[in-house]
Amino acid sequence: MTNKIKAAIIGSSGYAGEELTRILANHSFVEIKYLTSKSYLGQNYSDIYQNFNKIINIKCEEDNLDRISKEVDVIFLALPHGIASSKVNYDVLKNSKVIDLGADFRIRDANVYEYWYKTKHNAKSLLNEAVYGLCEIYYGDIKNARLVANPGCYTTCSILSLFPLLKENLIKEESIVIDAKSGVTGAGRSVNLNVHYCETNENIKAYKIASHRHTPEIEQELSLASNKNIALQFTPHLVPMNRGILVTCYAKLKENISTETIKDAYLKYYKDKYFIRLLKDNLYPETKWVKGSNFIDIGIFKDERTNNVIVSGAIDNLVKGAAGQAVQNMNIMFGLDEKTGLQNAPFFP
Amino acid sequence: MTNKIKAAIIGSSGYAGEELTRILANHSFVEIKYLTSKSYLGQNYSDIYQNFNKIINIKCEEDNLDRISKEVDVIFLALPHGIASSKVNYDVLKNSKVIDLGADFRIRDANVYEYWYKTKHNAKSLLNEAVYGLCEIYYGDIKNARLVANPGCYTTCSILSLFPLLKENLIKEESIVIDAKSGVTGAGRSVNLNVHYCETNENIKAYKIASHRHTPEIEQELSLASNKNIALQFTPHLVPMNRGILVTCYAKLKENISTETIKDAYLKYYKDKYFIRLLKDNLYPETKWVKGSNFIDIGIFKDERTNNVIVSGAIDNLVKGAAGQAVQNMNIMFGLDEKTGLQNAPFFP
Amino acid sequence: MTNKIKAAIIGSSGYAGEELTRILANHSFVEIKYLTSKSYLGQNYSDIYQNFNKIINIKCEEDNLDRISKEVDVIFLALPHGIASSKVNYDVLKNSKVIDLGADFRIRDANVYEYWYKTKHNAKSLLNEAVYGLCEIYYGDIKNARLVANPGCYTTCSILSLFPLLKENLIKEESIVIDAKSGVTGAGRSVNLNVHYCETNENIKAYKIASHRHTPEIEQELSLASNKNIALQFTPHLVPMNRGILVTCYAKLKENISTETIKDAYLKYYKDKYFIRLLKDNLYPETKWVKGSNFIDIGIFKDERTNNVIVSGAIDNLVKGAAGQAVQNMNIMFGLDEKTGLQNAPFFP
Amino acid sequence: MTNKIKAAIIGSSGYAGEELTRILANHSFVEIKYLTSKSYLGQNYSDIYQNFNKIINIKCEEDNLDRISKEVDVIFLALPHGIASSKVNYDVLKNSKVIDLGADFRIRDANVYEYWYKTKHNAKSLLNEAVYGLCEIYYGDIKNARLVANPGCYTTCSILSLFPLLKENLIKEESIVIDAKSGVTGAGRSVNLNVHYCETNENIKAYKIASHRHTPEIEQELSLASNKNIALQFTPHLVPMNRGILVTCYAKLKENISTETIKDAYLKYYKDKYFIRLLKDNLYPETKWVKGSNFIDIGIFKDERTNNVIVSGAIDNLVKGAAGQAVQNMNIMFGLDEKTGLQNAPFFP
Repeated sequence: MTNKIKAAIIGSSGYAGEELTRILANHSFVEIKYLTSKSYLGQNYSDIYQNFNKIINIKCEEDNLDRISKEVDVIFLALPHGIASSKVNYDVLKNSKVIDLGADFRIRDANVYEYWYKTKHNAKSLLNEAVYGLCEIYYGDIKNARLVANPGCYTTCSILSLFPLLKENLIKEESIVIDAKSGVTGAGRSVNLNVHYCETNENIKAYKIASHRHTPEIEQELSLASNKNIALQFTPHLVPMNRGILVTCYAKLKENISTETIKDAYLKYYKDKYFIRLLKDNLYPETKWVKGSNFIDIGIFKDERTNNVIVSGAIDNLVKGAAGQAVQNMNIMFGLDEKTGLQNAPFFP
Repeated sequence: MTNKIKAAIIGSSGYAGEELTRILANHSFVEIKYLTSKSYLGQNYSDIYQNFNKIINIKCEEDNLDRISKEVDVIFLALPHGIASSKVNYDVLKNSKVIDLGADFRIRDANVYEYWYKTKHNAKSLLNEAVYGLCEIYYGDIKNARLVANPGCYTTCSILSLFPLLKENLIKEESIVIDAKSGVTGAGRSVNLNVHYCETNENIKAYKIASHRHTPEIEQELSLASNKNIALQFTPHLVPMNRGILVTCYAKLKENISTETIKDAYLKYYKDKYFIRLLKDNLYPETKWVKGSNFIDIGIFKDERTNNVIVSGAIDNLVKGAAGQAVQNMNIMFGLDEKTGLQNAPFFP
Repeated sequence: MTNKIKAAIIGSSGYAGEELTRILANHSFVEIKYLTSKSYLGQNYSDIYQNFNKIINIKCEEDNLDRISKEVDVIFLALPHGIASSKVNYDVLKNSKVIDLGADFRIRDANVYEYWYKTKHNAKSLLNEAVYGLCEIYYGDIKNARLVANPGCYTTCSILSLFPLLKENLIKEESIVIDAKSGVTGAGRSVNLNVHYCETNENIKAYKIASHRHTPEIEQELSLASNKNIALQFTPHLVPMNRGILVTCYAKLKENISTETIKDAYLKYYKDKYFIRLLKDNLYPETKWVKGSNFIDIGIFKDERTNNVIVSGAIDNLVKGAAGQAVQNMNIMFGLDEKTGLQNAPFFP
Repeated sequence: MTNKIKAAIIGSSGYAGEELTRILANHSFVEIKYLTSKSYLGQNYSDIYQNFNKIINIKCEEDNLDRISKEVDVIFLALPHGIASSKVNYDVLKNSKVIDLGADFRIRDANVYEYWYKTKHNAKSLLNEAVYGLCEIYYGDIKNARLVANPGCYTTCSILSLFPLLKENLIKEESIVIDAKSGVTGAGRSVNLNVHYCETNENIKAYKIASHRHTPEIEQELSLASNKNIALQFTPHLVPMNRGILVTCYAKLKENISTETIKDAYLKYYKDKYFIRLLKDNLYPETKWVKGSNFIDIGIFKDERTNNVIVSGAIDNLVKGAAGQAVQNMNIMFGLDEKTGLQNAPFFP
């Protein structure tokens, strides 16, 4: 490529925005043109995140999408829900491709969105155009998209862990339980007592039982995979670590489903997907082995006593669960190898 | 009481032994007579655990139960499985009460024990005599016992979280999933790569899926509660923190079971149990709120969409899950108020 | 004692207030009458700190000292600096003893206070009456005091680590360096980016080099001990852990001071002090061994190559560094054994 | 470059070896040919470190340097002290360049080595040839070296923090105190109670006071810089985090040294050094801002009251303190830009 892709990150001061900046700063074919931040307007980005000292020399600007979209090739949105949908419009999309890391374009049915998010949807007319950016499932659609809805962190890990089981019709759909555990970056960088060091350290808890907003997103995609209307149990937990999501998924198998059948299903859909690593027998996914990378590690177990299948999946919530997948989407949209800029080995320890 | 209870702790150099020493050192009616340790034979206990400097002045001795049983009123065993059952016998029990923190006397059916623990049981004749020391369920039996099998950490938390649902026949027994998370003290003090700081810190993983040895213990007690033969899914996880167990339990409700019916079931069995704290609506158990105490915090949730009940329970694995419950058992066996020596507020932060 | 000491904690919702509540709740001779909190006025204390569920059943009140002082025997103040001195007066002191955990009465010279704290002192007339509550040094004065200034966390650890060296004139006073490390509870419970989990975890930093407000307090006491005007270097650091302070102190020895002379100095002043544990040769203080206790562990080293003495001291910042020492002060003021309510073994792990 | 540099890592299964593998795997001009490990001989490297799954497909071999040196361009040694010096010889050096991450070739005076390391030196004849690989100081020598002694972690951070002060003769040499704090990877991957999660978590301690083996290395280099014989105080501490070293250095200034003079000294030597970041006024180095990078952040403070200069330096112990600097050395030795493969932004959070 002779010309670099010019990129803007709108809402760059949160953890997902920072991770995106970090990945793009090292991407051979990208030039970061704009970083915007409401809270830090006019400040040097490297004063907000001092890791970027000597690496990024950009001041935070206002998020004027009309102007910015004319000067860049791709806009990444890392904004609270309800905001992105009020900023993106057809004019913006004519000028620039848009990858939204937030929730506004993930749910196809605006009613479902409004029910779970308790707010009106501001850009229903764009929902048809938006492509759900789960790269391993929607590669073809993403290639041609102008507007990509980057999946949520819990959802990426949950859907990829369960997709083959539903696609191949191996489990009883009403029995699905997803017990998910996340590091604290998942809660964002804004301050409140929940993320105070001493309140989070040496502690684990479940939260938002039966009410977390990633639920309808997982249900939407697994329903599409299975061609059935799925309602499932999703429970998030907060774990005292910076990064990482682990999901432990449970489902009752249909009759006479062997371990081999299960493993074949995963191979069928995933054997050529670089970022999906199916673990060897008796190995367990651990968040430490994917930290800083775009990989998802998946381990599959069958319990003969209960006839349950248990699938464990691990990702880095800021990479495959946010910024990394956003770059993977960008790569696909611009005709690059999807791995570009995402090939560093996971960061351990 | 005029005379103090004389106590021996066999296997005092592990974390459960240390916690027991800590609690008993502060128990008004107990005198610690013996601490034994194979690895640290002859050493000052306060050199192994320097927190006890100026508090415990005892040298570690050999674990000669025949001799020790004649000089104490109660023996606590904190030994690897398979060892306790080779040390306890009728002579020992004639001399002294025994509380075993290990697994050897927990499983009533020696065949089940031998299947899961892959070893012969060495004291089958004592199994009838042993009382399962889950204090909130077997208070009456414990009162009269000579030999108490102190429940496991995961099991205490799991059984107490689910007991009322099964006793009252509210859930479909084949649907039970217990997703459990433990701090690292649960893995013991012996050194190996799994507990190396850098391998455990900033990481979460599941382990022993479908094969953890606490499974048959939970199944035994829930089967007794429900009068059915229960096989359930139990998955432990390792969390980067010192102490604490959180279980998140899932089950399909039978038809037309209201939230009120569920809550009434918990009140029926637990409202007078001091160490069980049923949380108010919308509060979630967190391990930090029970740390250092004998409490279990329980939160109950019903999901109308899935007809699942979700129960979350939190304990300190070293206290209610080991040493604290052992002291509670001792209190009951010796006619003391069960709270004696266990009334410190949880240690936060 | 037939009547319990009635106590009020003013500013009970910070970490020091919470720890004080925890210790007093388990103190045989104390009854907590009042807990006050501006931020949580009218709320159940056990809703703010859920560890106290079933243990403390008190609603947070306003901090009307005139009224409260008439109904209690002792008032503990855990307030930001500048506030305590505006609330305490002679009328309050006629009614009740006062132990101030804040800084307002620690510095004898109001000018020094005003220089470092950048604020006017509101109760200069009380400075003469206030006793500096470092129990191991001022036991006699504390016994007769109405108003005790409880020392700071860094200061308690620093002064006790260095006191014998200065009292016995063993070191060059201008050479003192105190490099201190604190857990995050030392930063308090109010929320800001500095205590966000992800900003504090996996990180260490120095802060307030040459400008921390505990400096003049340490200098005041070491100057008194040595009868010289001492200016020293004090540097605090933030360590990713909840509790604990470690200080590593350095000073050039005067000529011909042997290791034996140094150790004798420590024995001379400390051998009868229960809460000071002088470690055996080659053992290092570690904050884990004093956690949850009122102990300070001290290790003394001489480097023959540099002729430096290095003294390492460890405390729990919330106990010996705040609430525990406050209770020790109360015990002394009310004629109790100073250990009352402070005898639990350190909490490990 | 048309041909890649072929590299071998001897002792690749420790944390420094792993980090080196991680960096080299992403280095455009390097091909990893050999990974050796005694403990994991014959095993897939990606089974030891599962982060390398799909990235490194190499089996661990024996460390036959005679053979290996003929097939590679550069050998990295990451071995316990005493081993490297018995493996390297003139034949090896004729075939291949050698970068030793261990201590054997760092100390120029074999007597000093033998005094501190309590072992005979096995290759004294090579000491003259070995170049001390502190890149910012010895760039020219490294360029032409066949054998480079990569500096220690504590030493890199300490020397770079203090070098300009000694070079410019600004401080009293006998007054130097270096208080250093390290994450747990510094203790290596071999298992023992000191690195057990529960013994390290929630704890800080000093260790090896007045006896740590990095002392003579720091003294050697600062003595050379100042042309005086320096003995200094170095104290390491263990901090509950994976990575990072922070040093806080203290020294008495000579007379009439202004802050400006001090800052000018640092600019004089460092203003063109990419990997040294001199912080703006009032900013403090924090290990989190250099994590995963080859940067050292340095903050300089003068205390007018004590006439001390305080310098705080932060590095990632595994990168600038080990593997990163080793790659920087390799780059220089092979005529590459020293930044090659080391340009990723620090990894945060």
